[in-house]
Amino acid sequence: MTPAPAPTAMPLRQALRVAEGPITLLGYDPASKPLSPGSKSKALKELASTGAVLASQQEMLYANGASGDPRRVLLVLQGTDTSGKDGVVRHVVGQVGPAGVSITSFKRPTAEEAAHHFLWRIRRALPAAGMIGVFNRSHYEDVLVTRVHQSIDGPAWAERIADINAFERQLSDSGTVLVKCFLHISYSEQRKRLLARLDDPSKLWKFNPADIEERAYWSDYQSAYAAAIAATSTEAAPWHIVPSDSKWYRNWAVSQLLRDALLGLELSYPPADFDVEAARARLRPPF
Amino acid sequence: MTPAPAPTAMPLRQALRVAEGPITLLGYDPASKPLSPGSKSKALKELASTGAVLASQQEMLYANGASGDPRRVLLVLQGTDTSGKDGVVRHVVGQVGPAGVSITSFKRPTAEEAAHHFLWRIRRALPAAGMIGVFNRSHYEDVLVTRVHQSIDGPAWAERIADINAFERQLSDSGTVLVKCFLHISYSEQRKRLLARLDDPSKLWKFNPADIEERAYWSDYQSAYAAAIAATSTEAAPWHIVPSDSKWYRNWAVSQLLRDALLGLELSYPPADFDVEAARARLRPPF
Repeated sequence: MTPAPAPTAMPLRQALRVAEGPITLLGYDPASKPLSPGSKSKALKELASTGAVLASQQEMLYANGASGDPRRVLLVLQGTDTSGKDGVVRHVVGQVGPAGVSITSFKRPTAEEAAHHFLWRIRRALPAAGMIGVFNRSHYEDVLVTRVHQSIDGPAWAERIADINAFERQLSDSGTVLVKCFLHISYSEQRKRLLARLDDPSKLWKFNPADIEERAYWSDYQSAYAAAIAATSTEAAPWHIVPSDSKWYRNWAVSQLLRDALLGLELSYPPADFDVEAARARLRPPF
Repeated sequence: MTPAPAPTAMPLRQALRVAEGPITLLGYDPASKPLSPGSKSKALKELASTGAVLASQQEMLYANGASGDPRRVLLVLQGTDTSGKDGVVRHVVGQVGPAGVSITSFKRPTAEEAAHHFLWRIRRALPAAGMIGVFNRSHYEDVLVTRVHQSIDGPAWAERIADINAFERQLSDSGTVLVKCFLHISYSEQRKRLLARLDDPSKLWKFNPADIEERAYWSDYQSAYAAAIAATSTEAAPWHIVPSDSKWYRNWAVSQLLRDALLGLELSYPPADFDVEAARARLRPPF
């Protein structure tokens, strides 16, 4: 038996949990590293060992789902362009058996999607029982872009926020554990990463000149994120602000948050619902 | 520059490709290891290095898909219970960035699915451009279980076979590269694996006593697979019979087949469709 990991004085999920009440993102340093293991090499080591825990927990979650347990996990990733949503999917979620994960990247709504309530496409992408769902962008886009570009007014925004809170409460009540992460980077880090994309022929396809236009609205986006996060960080579905100027810290932190969510389910393998001895007997040679 | 891997005298995709004309699976030894790297340790090493190739090829495929290239890859996995379909998904497909893969495990059709043409649910699960799709079981179930249990007659079976060939030809014509693998295990190897599940508390949930009932139809299934494979191994979508009594050979072989399919696309990163210099200039500080 391997000993259980030593409990941290303050779990990461508390350290990164957004404060109650109105917030400004200026109060959260994107270069900070709360509860960091101390160095990149240590963090990568912990990321790998946490990956093994994620993989075995996911198998157990799946096994329980196949046996009627309604529980599932939903990781919601938000953040500005280049904040590292794809990187988290690759380096954290990629450690888990791919059949147990359903990943949805939400783009600009299609005509069909736009003709429905903004949660319509979200509901269709929810993970099934036993699955880990990952939203790369999410319903939060509908209270961010819209607010920055003023395509909805204040009351409409507030109504969407209320819709989101009711929706997430329903999810939580029916067995979905939500892990909501805002990947927080600085203005200058975004410049650095956009320039790096321009320098790398294998990254050019990810670059969209329109992202530069959006960058002009940086402060508006930061305010919109702060307002949305403050208004939707509930007991059922709290927000975590993950400082993400450091990629290794970001990956380490999200993997810890996801692991803690899974461990919180206190999973074990479901017992056999059939007579194991009888099955064994029937498989005796020559059968 | 790393040198290109030395070409094998006979590529694996030819060595494992099913013979033309009627076949019997008795002619294919599930314990054989054609073109094997020679030992488990060498195969695991090659699996890891092939994994890196798969990951980079998948990224390139995705980048091209995002730039309008319609091409995609579809890995079809068939085989009896315990033949290792889940293992291939975990150990081969799991080496690729999870956002670029869409995996569908086909179960017994739901009432809604059963009310449609048998290819209806298959078409809905097809990978999008730039994606690697994986079918864990597939439309082939509809010409296997049905034939063994005689729920459709000969003409109906033949019609489905014709539907499948037309469907796969359409897929191929519109840019989907099909990699069809039959994971071939022996009767005694299945016994061993079923018993192993009974001995492992973390595997009990995968055990279904109904699988023992199906095992009584082993020979019928082997005949049904042989008939379906022979009738649907086309130039556009050939079948590979992967000897799968050895798990390491099976994983190694499927990873090679998938790699060769990707390399056959001769992918490169799409060039920028915007003015890179102008974008760089606009990102100069203080912007």
